[in-house]
Amino acid sequence: MTLAEFQQTQLPLVEAELTDFLKQHTTDPRLAESMLYSVAAGGKRIRPLILLAVVASFRKELTTGVYQCGAALEMVHTYSLIHDDLPAMDDDALRRGKPTNHVVYGEALAILAGDGLLTAAFQLLSQAQLANDEKLLLLQLLAEKAGSQGMVAGQAADIQGEHRQLTLEELEGIHRRKTGDLLLYAFVAGGILAHQPEAVLQQLQQLALHVGLAFQIRDDLLDITATAEEVGKNTHKDQLAGKNTYPSLLGFVEAQQALVAELDAAEQLLLVMGQQLVFEPALLQEILLKLRM
Amino acid sequence: MTLAEFQQTQLPLVEAELTDFLKQHTTDPRLAESMLYSVAAGGKRIRPLILLAVVASFRKELTTGVYQCGAALEMVHTYSLIHDDLPAMDDDALRRGKPTNHVVYGEALAILAGDGLLTAAFQLLSQAQLANDEKLLLLQLLAEKAGSQGMVAGQAADIQGEHRQLTLEELEGIHRRKTGDLLLYAFVAGGILAHQPEAVLQQLQQLALHVGLAFQIRDDLLDITATAEEVGKNTHKDQLAGKNTYPSLLGFVEAQQALVAELDAAEQLLLVMGQQLVFEPALLQEILLKLRM
Repeated sequence: MTLAEFQQTQLPLVEAELTDFLKQHTTDPRLAESMLYSVAAGGKRIRPLILLAVVASFRKELTTGVYQCGAALEMVHTYSLIHDDLPAMDDDALRRGKPTNHVVYGEALAILAGDGLLTAAFQLLSQAQLANDEKLLLLQLLAEKAGSQGMVAGQAADIQGEHRQLTLEELEGIHRRKTGDLLLYAFVAGGILAHQPEAVLQQLQQLALHVGLAFQIRDDLLDITATAEEVGKNTHKDQLAGKNTYPSLLGFVEAQQALVAELDAAEQLLLVMGQQLVFEPALLQEILLKLRM
Repeated sequence: MTLAEFQQTQLPLVEAELTDFLKQHTTDPRLAESMLYSVAAGGKRIRPLILLAVVASFRKELTTGVYQCGAALEMVHTYSLIHDDLPAMDDDALRRGKPTNHVVYGEALAILAGDGLLTAAFQLLSQAQLANDEKLLLLQLLAEKAGSQGMVAGQAADIQGEHRQLTLEELEGIHRRKTGDLLLYAFVAGGILAHQPEAVLQQLQQLALHVGLAFQIRDDLLDITATAEEVGKNTHKDQLAGKNTYPSLLGFVEAQQALVAELDAAEQLLLVMGQQLVFEPALLQEILLKLRM
C-alpha cells in the first residue's frame, strides 16, 4: 500500500474517532464549535499518520484502540496550536489558511477550547479499547512528552529566548521539546501499540529525534522560501520577529545540509530496522521523502 | 481526630507530593517557578481535604496513592484558577491575597503554567501508587469532570452568560459544572479509593451536589459582605461586572436560606450514611460547619 492509499483509507477513521468523541463529550455548544473548528481546520495529521504507520510497519492490525490513540494525539497537537497562536504567545491570525481560533471565537473561548482538547485527549485515551497496562503506559508517556518536561517546557523556553541570540544547542533543546517530543510520542506509542520490546522502542526514539529535527529545520527554511499561500500560514514571520532559527544561526545552505543529514540518518535507521526486525519500512520511507526539499 | 488535627497532619503530605512532583518533572526553571508560585499561593486545599476526609471516613488507610490523588486534584484546581484569572477571562489581579500568576509572570507563561499543571495532574495520577484499574477509573472520572463536559464547559457557559440575565436553572447549570464537578470528583474519588460500591458512590455524588451548590452560594454572598482582606481576593466584583449570582437572582435573604437548605440536606445525608455504612461522618460534618455563615 502506498502512503497516499494508507492516508486515504486510515486517516478518516482517526478523524471519525476525533470528531465523534468531541461531539459526544462537550456540553457547551459554542465551546464544541470552537474545538471542532480547530480540529476541522485540518492540517496533514502527520502525528497520527506516523503512529498508525509505525503500527502497520510492524505488520500489526490497526484496531479501534489504535485509531483512538491517534485521535487523542491529534487533540493534544491541536490544543497546542490554539494556545501557541494566542496574542499573548505567538500572536498568529492565520493557520492552515484559516483565521486562528481566537480570531473567530475570542481569546477566552480559545483558551478554553485548548484546555478542553487537552483534557479530552486524556479522557479518550483512558477509556480507549486497549489493555489497561498498555493504556497506562501510553497515558504516562503522553503526559510526559506533552507537559512541563516536554512540549509545554519547550514553548516556555521558546518565548523566553525570543529577544536574545541563542546557541545552536539552546535552539535544539527548545525544538526537541516543543515539536520533537510529541513526534517522539507518535513513534514510540506506535511501537507500544505494536507490542515491541524496550530495545525497539529505543530505536523508534532515535528515529523520532532525527525526524523531529528535520521537521523543525524544514519549517524554518519554508518560512524563508515559501509564500503564505503555499504553507497556509503567514511566512517571513521569524525574520521579522527576530526569532532564532536554524537558517539564522547556521546560514541557509548549512541549514539545508543539516536537513539532509537528519533525513539520511533516519533513512539509514529505517533500513537497519527493516533488516533486523519484522518491519516493513516502506510507509515511513515515503513520509521521510516528503520532508526532503 | 478533629478536622484541624486532620488538616495539620494530612495536608502537608499532599503538599509534599504536589511540590516534589512539579520540581522533578519541569525542565524549564521559570515555568517551574510560575507553576509553584500558584501552587504555593495556597488556599485551603479544600478539594484534597475532602478527598482525604472521605477515604478516612470509611476508615481506610491514607496511602501514598491517596495523597498523590489529592495532589493531582489540587493541580487541576490550580490550573483552572490561573486560566480563569487571565485578562481574557475574569481578569483578576489578586487571588488569595497575592498578585495572580499572569501579573507576576506575564500572560504567556501563565497560560503555559496552567497547561503544565493540567498535564502534570494526569501524569502524576497515571503513575500513582494504585492498582491499574483504580487509576484508570480515576483518570476517566477526572478528565470527565474537569473537561468540556464539566469544569471547562461551565467556565465557557459562564463567560457567554456574562452580559445577559440568566434563569436560576441556567445559573445552577453553570455552577454545577464550573465548581461543582471538581468537588464531585473529590467526593467520588474518595469513595473509589475507599473501594466503595456503586450505590455508595451515588450517595457521595448526591452529597457533592449539595456541597457544591452551598459553596457557590456562599462565595456569591461573601462577594457582597466580605472585604478583600477577609477573603484574599477583590470583592464586590460580581455586582460591578453585572454578573449573575444567587443573591442577584434570588435576593440576599433567599440566597442565605438556600445556603442553609443545601447544608441541611448534606448534613442529613451524612447522618444516613453514618447509620447505613461503616462510615464515620464527623470530619465531613466539621467541613460542612465551616461553610455555614
